[in-house]
Amino acid sequence: MSLAAQDAVDVRYMARALELARKGLYSTHPNPRVGCVIVRDGQVVGEGWHARAGEPHAEVHALRQAGERARGATAYVTLEPCSHHGRTPPCAEALVGAGLARVVAAMQDPNPQVAGRGLLLLAEAGIAVHSGVLEAEARELNAGFIKRMEHGLPLVRIKLAMSLDGRTAMASGESQWITGPAARAEVQRLRARSSVVLSGADTVLADAARLTVRPDELGLNAELTALAVTRPPLRVLVDGRLRVPLDAPFYQAGAALVATCAAAAARDRFLEEGHELLAVPGSNGHVDLRKLLAELAARGANEVLVEAGPRLAGAFARLGLVDEYRLFVAPKLLGSSARPLLELPLARMAEAQDLRICDIRAVGDDWQITAVPQRPY
Amino acid sequence: MSLAAQDAVDVRYMARALELARKGLYSTHPNPRVGCVIVRDGQVVGEGWHARAGEPHAEVHALRQAGERARGATAYVTLEPCSHHGRTPPCAEALVGAGLARVVAAMQDPNPQVAGRGLLLLAEAGIAVHSGVLEAEARELNAGFIKRMEHGLPLVRIKLAMSLDGRTAMASGESQWITGPAARAEVQRLRARSSVVLSGADTVLADAARLTVRPDELGLNAELTALAVTRPPLRVLVDGRLRVPLDAPFYQAGAALVATCAAAAARDRFLEEGHELLAVPGSNGHVDLRKLLAELAARGANEVLVEAGPRLAGAFARLGLVDEYRLFVAPKLLGSSARPLLELPLARMAEAQDLRICDIRAVGDDWQITAVPQRPY
Repeated sequence: MSLAAQDAVDVRYMARALELARKGLYSTHPNPRVGCVIVRDGQVVGEGWHARAGEPHAEVHALRQAGERARGATAYVTLEPCSHHGRTPPCAEALVGAGLARVVAAMQDPNPQVAGRGLLLLAEAGIAVHSGVLEAEARELNAGFIKRMEHGLPLVRIKLAMSLDGRTAMASGESQWITGPAARAEVQRLRARSSVVLSGADTVLADAARLTVRPDELGLNAELTALAVTRPPLRVLVDGRLRVPLDAPFYQAGAALVATCAAAAARDRFLEEGHELLAVPGSNGHVDLRKLLAELAARGANEVLVEAGPRLAGAFARLGLVDEYRLFVAPKLLGSSARPLLELPLARMAEAQDLRICDIRAVGDDWQITAVPQRPY
Repeated sequence: MSLAAQDAVDVRYMARALELARKGLYSTHPNPRVGCVIVRDGQVVGEGWHARAGEPHAEVHALRQAGERARGATAYVTLEPCSHHGRTPPCAEALVGAGLARVVAAMQDPNPQVAGRGLLLLAEAGIAVHSGVLEAEARELNAGFIKRMEHGLPLVRIKLAMSLDGRTAMASGESQWITGPAARAEVQRLRARSSVVLSGADTVLADAARLTVRPDELGLNAELTALAVTRPPLRVLVDGRLRVPLDAPFYQAGAALVATCAAAAARDRFLEEGHELLAVPGSNGHVDLRKLLAELAARGANEVLVEAGPRLAGAFARLGLVDEYRLFVAPKLLGSSARPLLELPLARMAEAQDLRICDIRAVGDDWQITAVPQRPY
C-alpha cells in the first residue's frame, strides 16, 4: 500500500466532488450526477464531473486534468466507478491504468446486479478502496436514479401551488398567479432537473399549459442554462380518453408523449405531428399510473415531476406513488369554497397520510415546503 | 448636561431592557411589559421589570437596585416613563428625584392623550432625553397594549391547527391530536400571555374544551410559571343562543364570561355559578364581534387569543378583525372531504385575503406559521 493510501480520508474532498456532481443536475439524464476529485500530497490535482450521457464520465475528466500526477494519488468519487463497457469505457479500468493508490467512493452502484463490482475490480488491482463517505448526500443527489435501479420506478415529485388555507383555485377555476415569480422560477428548475414532466388533460385544457422549460426563467448561470436547454425533459400527458386536441398549446410546444387507454387507432395521427402515443391499460378511461411509471423508468426516467390538478395529483397520492411533495404556499386565504389541494376523499383520521416535512424555505413572498410520505414503498 | 448624557446611546442596554421586559409576558395584563436598565460609567448599576399590575414599575425596581449610583447615570426604559398617578406614583418623578442624567426610551406612551408628557417632564427637569431606540422590538412586545390605546380594540390572534392540505378535522368531526405535544405547549404559552382566551359554542360543545392554562404544560421555568398561574386569562365564550349548559367542562373549570344575544333573564343563573353574562347586540343569534372586542378592550384586554372552529374563526376573518394568524401545521394530508380551516366563502380571486408570512418555525414534528393580514385596519 502506498503512502497516499494511509492518509486519513478527508471528507472535504468528497464535499467538493459532490459540488462538482451537482453541476450535472440538469443534464446527465438518464445517467446519475457524478463528481470526482483527485488529490495527491494534500493538493487537488484533478477535478471532473459528468455533464451528459455519451460524454466522458467524471473520473475521466479528472484523470485528464491530473495527468501523471494521478500516480499514487487518491480519487474521491461520488459514485462507485463503473466496471462495464457502456457508451464509454469502464472508469475502474481507467483508474487502475493511471496508477491511483486509493479510491474513496460516497456510495456503491445502486444497481443490485453490479453493486460492488467496480470497487472489487479496483481492489483486485491493488488499489485501496473505501466506500460510504457522505453517502446520505450522494444518495439524495441521485435519489431518482437509485429508485429506478432498485425498484424499476422513477422518483415521483409532485409540485402543488396552494394558498395558506390549502386551496389551489377558486370554485370557478380562476387560479392564475397564486404564487410569485420566484416560486415560478423554482418550478422551472424543478422541471429542468426532471427526466419527465407529467400532467393531465384537466390542467392542460384549463390552463393551456405547455409545461416547457423556459431558459430565461431558470435563473441559472450561462453554463447550466445551456446544459439544461440541450436536455429538456420529456413532456408526458395523461389523457385516458384523448380529450386534448392536437392543436392545443401543449402539443404545439414540441414533441410529447401521450399516455392513454384510448384506441391505438389514433397513434398515426399523433406520430404525424411528431408525438408518441403510448397505450397503457386502465379502467373507466383512467390510465394505470403504476404501469405508466414502470414504462417511463424502462425508458430511463429517473425523476418525474407531476404538475397536475387535484384529480390526477390526488390519484398519485391515493395509490401511494408519491415520493416527494413540493408545496408552494402563497400567503393568501382563498376561502372554504375554493378548490382543494388534492382530490383525496378520506373518511377517518386513521386514513390520513403521514408526511415528514424536510424543508421549509422562503421563495420570494411565498414559501416552499418539501415533505415526504412516512410510509416506505 | 452631565458627562453621562454625552456618552453614545448603547443599543445593547436597550436590548437587555427588552429582555427584562419579556419576563412580564405572562403577567402584566392590563399593563404593558416594561424593562429598565440603569448604566453609570459603562457599568450596569440597576435592572428592573414590571411583573404585575399594582406592583412597582420597572424603573422603580431598577432605581432601588442602583441606589445612590443612579445619580448622573443613564436609564434605558422600553416605554416612556409614566407621568400620571395611577396605582403607583409616576416613574418620571422618581427618575428626576434620583438625579438621573439621561433617560433613553424605546418608544413613547402609545396613549395619544399622554404621549410625550413623561419625556417632557424629564426634559423640563434638565434630564437629557432620547426616544426611538429599538422601537420596532418594543412595539412588537406590547402590540396588544398599543392597539388598545390607539384604537380601543385588543389585538386579535387566531390560533388554528391544520393539516398540510389546510384541513382541521374529518367531515365526521373526528379531530383529536392533529398536532403533537410541542405544538400544544406553544398553544398553552399563547393562552398564558393573552388577556382573553375566546372560543365559540361549537368548539366548547364538540371538544368539551376548557381553554384553561395548565401550568405543567407551559414548559416555562418556575418563576414564569408562577407568574402565569397568578394571572390566568379571562375565558370568554361566544354563545349567541346560550347553547352550552352550565355543567359543561368549560364552565366547571372556573369563572368565565359568556357573550350572548340571548335574553338577559339568564344573567342571574350564570352569576350564581360565578360566571358573568354579557349581553351584546347581534343578529340571527350571532354576537356582534366588533362590539364584543370593544367591550373587552374597555375592560383592559390587550391580547385576545381566538381558539374556535371554522365558523367563528371565519367570522373574525370575514369582518377583518384578525391581527395575527398562528397556524400549527401537522405533516399530514387529511384529504378533500375533511373540514376547512375557515368558513370563508369567497367566489373571486380578487376577494382573497392577502397575508404576509412573518415567521415559520419547527415545533416538534409540526410547524408554526405566523401570518398577518396585509390590509391595515
